[in-house]
Amino acid sequence: MALMTFDELVHIVRSVFVRNGMSDGNAMIIATNCVSAERDGAASHGLFRVSQYVSSLKSGAVDGHAKPALDPDSAASVVSVDARNGFAQPALELSRQPAIEKARAAGVSIVTIRDSHHLSALWLDVEPFARAKLVALAFVNSIPRVVPWGGQEPVLGTNPMAFAVPREHEPPLIFDQASSAMAFGEIALAAKTGHSVSSGVGVDRHGQPTTIAQAIIDGGALLPFGGHKGSAITLMVELLAAALTGSNFSFEVGSSVAPGTRTVRTGELVILIDPRRIGASNFYQRVDVILDKLMASGVKRLPGNRRHQNRMRSLSEGIAVSDAMLATLNGYL
Amino acid sequence: MALMTFDELVHIVRSVFVRNGMSDGNAMIIATNCVSAERDGAASHGLFRVSQYVSSLKSGAVDGHAKPALDPDSAASVVSVDARNGFAQPALELSRQPAIEKARAAGVSIVTIRDSHHLSALWLDVEPFARAKLVALAFVNSIPRVVPWGGQEPVLGTNPMAFAVPREHEPPLIFDQASSAMAFGEIALAAKTGHSVSSGVGVDRHGQPTTIAQAIIDGGALLPFGGHKGSAITLMVELLAAALTGSNFSFEVGSSVAPGTRTVRTGELVILIDPRRIGASNFYQRVDVILDKLMASGVKRLPGNRRHQNRMRSLSEGIAVSDAMLATLNGYL
Repeated sequence: MALMTFDELVHIVRSVFVRNGMSDGNAMIIATNCVSAERDGAASHGLFRVSQYVSSLKSGAVDGHAKPALDPDSAASVVSVDARNGFAQPALELSRQPAIEKARAAGVSIVTIRDSHHLSALWLDVEPFARAKLVALAFVNSIPRVVPWGGQEPVLGTNPMAFAVPREHEPPLIFDQASSAMAFGEIALAAKTGHSVSSGVGVDRHGQPTTIAQAIIDGGALLPFGGHKGSAITLMVELLAAALTGSNFSFEVGSSVAPGTRTVRTGELVILIDPRRIGASNFYQRVDVILDKLMASGVKRLPGNRRHQNRMRSLSEGIAVSDAMLATLNGYL
Repeated sequence: MALMTFDELVHIVRSVFVRNGMSDGNAMIIATNCVSAERDGAASHGLFRVSQYVSSLKSGAVDGHAKPALDPDSAASVVSVDARNGFAQPALELSRQPAIEKARAAGVSIVTIRDSHHLSALWLDVEPFARAKLVALAFVNSIPRVVPWGGQEPVLGTNPMAFAVPREHEPPLIFDQASSAMAFGEIALAAKTGHSVSSGVGVDRHGQPTTIAQAIIDGGALLPFGGHKGSAITLMVELLAAALTGSNFSFEVGSSVAPGTRTVRTGELVILIDPRRIGASNFYQRVDVILDKLMASGVKRLPGNRRHQNRMRSLSEGIAVSDAMLATLNGYL
């Protein structure tokens, strides 16, 4: 096990991506994103994902050299980006400044990204907007892993949504949650480490409930969180992230297809609201009021708190990387 | 039991409201809203609510004569309305046309309503926007009934969110769901009719799980749907509907206070997106594609289908009103 700095790890991961088919600019953005997830303690969305990036690139499913393009005809409060079959993060990066400016000018703006691949954690997409003092809501669709409430087949994606609120004296409040009972990355990690999952999380290849992570992965499927209500949210994410952006639905990639062997080209939608432009007086004070009340009622940890603590520790003590992971990364170089 | 037409019922309910302290204009809007919920089969949000409207008016907590005011300084893509301690529906009605025009002009717009009282179903708020060919997302906070995940006290509201998508040849797809495991109106109705509720829905006055609806109402509390994920959504609704609009949080009305005896003054936020202005090609066709796929996967009923069927039956056969309800309504005249 080695303790590494953020920059050291970004350097290695960036080199891996460049060596395996990414442009240098895209590799810098995606390596920074990937190591940020690792830094914040999201094992399922950090270095664990490097092999998926590499397999996506090698299969030719994703264009690592894609140059995302801003749509010059976007409406006044919209920023539309064509990711051109690249990863979502460079497209989002391109949209960021115009989207912030539009939200500040008109009170609200929206980013649509089409034809993209999103392998990372969603809170990293919304945090920069909250740092720019905007409220942000983001939705991403993925690949078909989730059986809708009342259905028999996995036609919906794990479809995360993220929500970020700026605070005056604290880091932003951020939640990021899959619309499935558990994120697929977490289940993949549980399978790899031989852990079981809670009941209600998934079914096996025969549609029977199971707590064996590997059985969910081997032809099984996930269930939405919270029954029919979570299922409705999963569908909402498909409509926002895919239908509204002009991207593929999750089900338009067959679940039997191996990862990376066929293009996904799904979408992302981000809504930005500027509290200063919509008549919210004392917004920061009011956010503090309700969060203080939650803590007083017995809530021990606000959404995103643990990630922030992990980040502080990683930045002061270094990021712990296992020998096996280092060997994997070196193997890609 | 009597079968009545929509207009007959609106006439009666409107008269009840006027007799008990509403302006004629407000009474027309709210009676139409209330009877629409009854027509669509939402027993918990239809005529059942008339007595709550009346008690709110009689206590002086709500101003039945309030004239909502549009904020003349709203940003380009925002419509802000001060409900002036009236019910939310007249404020929303006032915002509707400018909000639709702003969404069509800039691709996205937002409505904020502050200092309002919302006793009705939320899908009725979003449906007109979907009929105007916009995608709509709405959030309302309420009174403290829900214990946050990890907390000990009911500090959050039942906080519904609604989502509506226009369709080309079908009625809009609409879901409307409380962020609690069950809507309070449904539990009140269960208590009134002596039914029990599922486990996981609520706790009694001692914080112990219960399936007795009356025990949840008598000093008990509700739980969020879907564990910590539903709890995060409940908090998100507080932040969107209250902090961003400049309204009270749900907890700022004590849960021990009898309904209607103290002002609530909560808020509502609606996000509108025009599919035609954000580069979504073939939007209607794409919506059909995923809904057809859901049905093919075994889903029997899409969100909002049952309400639409109830509406069609009510409009052709009449709305069934019990003798007891008729007596209640007549008692208020």
